[in-house]
Amino acid sequence: MKHPLKVGFLQTQPVFGDIENNLKQVEQRLRGMDADLVVLPELFTTGYQFRNQKEARDLAEPIPDGPTTRALMKLSADLNMHIVAGLAEVEGDTVYNSAVLTGPEGYVGKYRKAHIFDTEKNIFAAGNLPLPVFDIGKARVGIMICFDWRFPETARTLTLKGADVIAHPSNLVLLTCPQSMITRCLENRVFAVTADRVGSESRIEGETLRFIGQSQVVDPDGQVLVRASEENEEDHVVEINLADARNKSINPHNDLIADRREDLYRIP
Amino acid sequence: MKHPLKVGFLQTQPVFGDIENNLKQVEQRLRGMDADLVVLPELFTTGYQFRNQKEARDLAEPIPDGPTTRALMKLSADLNMHIVAGLAEVEGDTVYNSAVLTGPEGYVGKYRKAHIFDTEKNIFAAGNLPLPVFDIGKARVGIMICFDWRFPETARTLTLKGADVIAHPSNLVLLTCPQSMITRCLENRVFAVTADRVGSESRIEGETLRFIGQSQVVDPDGQVLVRASEENEEDHVVEINLADARNKSINPHNDLIADRREDLYRIP
Repeated sequence: MKHPLKVGFLQTQPVFGDIENNLKQVEQRLRGMDADLVVLPELFTTGYQFRNQKEARDLAEPIPDGPTTRALMKLSADLNMHIVAGLAEVEGDTVYNSAVLTGPEGYVGKYRKAHIFDTEKNIFAAGNLPLPVFDIGKARVGIMICFDWRFPETARTLTLKGADVIAHPSNLVLLTCPQSMITRCLENRVFAVTADRVGSESRIEGETLRFIGQSQVVDPDGQVLVRASEENEEDHVVEINLADARNKSINPHNDLIADRREDLYRIP
Repeated sequence: MKHPLKVGFLQTQPVFGDIENNLKQVEQRLRGMDADLVVLPELFTTGYQFRNQKEARDLAEPIPDGPTTRALMKLSADLNMHIVAGLAEVEGDTVYNSAVLTGPEGYVGKYRKAHIFDTEKNIFAAGNLPLPVFDIGKARVGIMICFDWRFPETARTLTLKGADVIAHPSNLVLLTCPQSMITRCLENRVFAVTADRVGSESRIEGETLRFIGQSQVVDPDGQVLVRASEENEEDHVVEINLADARNKSINPHNDLIADRREDLYRIP
């Protein structure tokens, strides 16, 4: 049986701190897309390289009660589209590197990046919410953010919780991620949509960051269905069949979940 | 501090069932190598494609009390070399797809493949021993066999048990393994030595197996230090620095083991 889903991503190049304009450009691009689920990059409204916590706190928003989440809710309703978007979230005095999921009926849920990368640790608190899988009717959507990829337990946990598709907002600087996401799909038989940004930021003396683009959709056989360039803003949508992710067999004798040997994975 | 280790592999093309000759060729090749640790392929004495359990039982040997293990013990003593080798093991009526580790002082230990691939399930029992890490003095050697690669928990468990180097005897037919082993090294910051075979077997009607070679040594940064061809028998040795695997940091803020979020990896 076929479970088709049109999934896509925007590969963006935000201007640091210009939330209004970054959001407006994304809105325009989304209004031109025909998709069931679209993934936006990590921190898509603000840019990445905060100089300090205060700067991040000033640009961060509550979720779901901030303007960006409200704008995404409206877009989701107008376009009958689910959207996963990365943004800086503030709660009290604490800032999280978060992602929000909105749908035609409004706010669905959020996730706070669990594995904080490098100097982000000076800015963001580590996530304190479970690794989430949201049932959006047509699909079960897991969410992880950027560096979460490096820890195999992240995608594995999302898979064991039932994810068909992993939405993966990113601001990649490590060259090894796009290839490693293929392994994540091969080992879990899931789809993964990595939405990355392009361009560079050098707001901190001696720390120029170049973002590597290469946003991609990978299928449960590890095939790259589409991969964007390293340098350009791009929009892509592909149709996938979720049945491929719900079948964990790779041959008549091996099921990648049933064959797990939990009895042997314990550390004495 | 440097912890140098000369690690190598033989990429072989065994003749099915000709244990004596397959072993003799490996002996000759090993006697020409200068290495601390050498990894041989899975089922290196017998070949891969058994027609039935009886055939496997007849070619399998006890470990450590069989002639192949005894020959490897002698080689290890003569050459002052540790050897990890895949072979069919029989215990009572049960046949396992096993690996043995021998050293200058004799037998060190064994492992029985935990994740049995495809029609191997008609031949071999699934492994019933822990995922092993053996301290051989100069290094802590973890062992996994071929298809074990597909399950991220295998290499992760070996890493958490202290492996510096994962010895990975293989008879690869899946094209995706060599690249995925890079991810295994990146996510765990370990070295991996995959020893594969070449050639093909078609002992079963309608089931021709082509083995893909591409034996390799990968370092904790995901760099392929050496990769053999897809078609030729080859011997390689590289010097590695185990200190690279004992340092799990990838930058001043991220340690790939300390940063694990076990609190979030639980399935409700």
